[in-house]
Amino acid sequence: MPELPKILTRHRVAESRLFKVDAASLRFSNGVERDYEYLVSGKTAAVIIVPMISDHEVLLVQEYGIGVEGYEWVCPKGKVDPGESHAEAADRELKEEAGYGAQSLTLLKCLSQSPNYMQHKTQIVLAQQLYPERLEGDEPEPMAVERFSLHNLAELTARGDVSEARTIAALYLARDFLAL
Amino acid sequence: MPELPKILTRHRVAESRLFKVDAASLRFSNGVERDYEYLVSGKTAAVIIVPMISDHEVLLVQEYGIGVEGYEWVCPKGKVDPGESHAEAADRELKEEAGYGAQSLTLLKCLSQSPNYMQHKTQIVLAQQLYPERLEGDEPEPMAVERFSLHNLAELTARGDVSEARTIAALYLARDFLAL
Repeated sequence: MPELPKILTRHRVAESRLFKVDAASLRFSNGVERDYEYLVSGKTAAVIIVPMISDHEVLLVQEYGIGVEGYEWVCPKGKVDPGESHAEAADRELKEEAGYGAQSLTLLKCLSQSPNYMQHKTQIVLAQQLYPERLEGDEPEPMAVERFSLHNLAELTARGDVSEARTIAALYLARDFLAL
Repeated sequence: MPELPKILTRHRVAESRLFKVDAASLRFSNGVERDYEYLVSGKTAAVIIVPMISDHEVLLVQEYGIGVEGYEWVCPKGKVDPGESHAEAADRELKEEAGYGAQSLTLLKCLSQSPNYMQHKTQIVLAQQLYPERLEGDEPEPMAVERFSLHNLAELTARGDVSEARTIAALYLARDFLAL
């Protein structure tokens, strides 16, 4: 592991209801100095759930994304509430978004996104032994829920409305973990 | 595909050197209205490259990320410059970050990241038939470059310093494409 750069200064440069942007000046071990900006998420953690409705089929939800201005099939996901474990957050989000609880929850991997300008971390949780249970969430509309086979992952990920990087990474890591 | 929500209003709520945040009010087809914020990237496109140095080995680069305050092994990536194609941008970034050009460049898949609050799109480019050629980039320090086998992807993705969602998605999609 190379020597970490030294963070010389940091300060807040922009803030909105949802986003905070900090600027930092860094000096790398070779003496080069460089200014960066990055999104601050603090201690906020997130989970993305791979819910197995059978030994080889996963449940995806269809969610509108204002960023892409369209509907995408994604793994259920959401923020970890204060006091919740990753597994508890995954179970709650699964009930809110897909209408299922899980008797078995396994942490697979912690993902970063654009580590050069985002602090955001997302824990992949494999959910098995599902049972129907719905919790009221904060979604603006009910999400469509469909089952897809992990045996046809190449076909699924070729779809234009399956593009989210964490969803694709989570499905492949789950398929490997389950040795499908 | 469900009926798209109607975008009632949009306006800029925050801006820094690198980031622009817009707020939008949406009305969903069920009549529910909701306010969102999202990062605006406009027409900026990005590429992430899977550079095959042999029939089963990929080159990863070790890059410092201020978001995670550490070094990560990632696929080479970067922005598409004005006037460049995705393939041209991939070839240039590969020369800048890893010191290789590619005689064969194949577009595999376009990834989104957090489509509910990011517009950002990244095109995965498989690079094959590599040859040594270095271009000067804007990196603050030379990146370490190492080869990793796609036969041991479970072992590679289990590492704590291999966490970037697009890198993991790109490696799995390339492995499937190459039928390894």
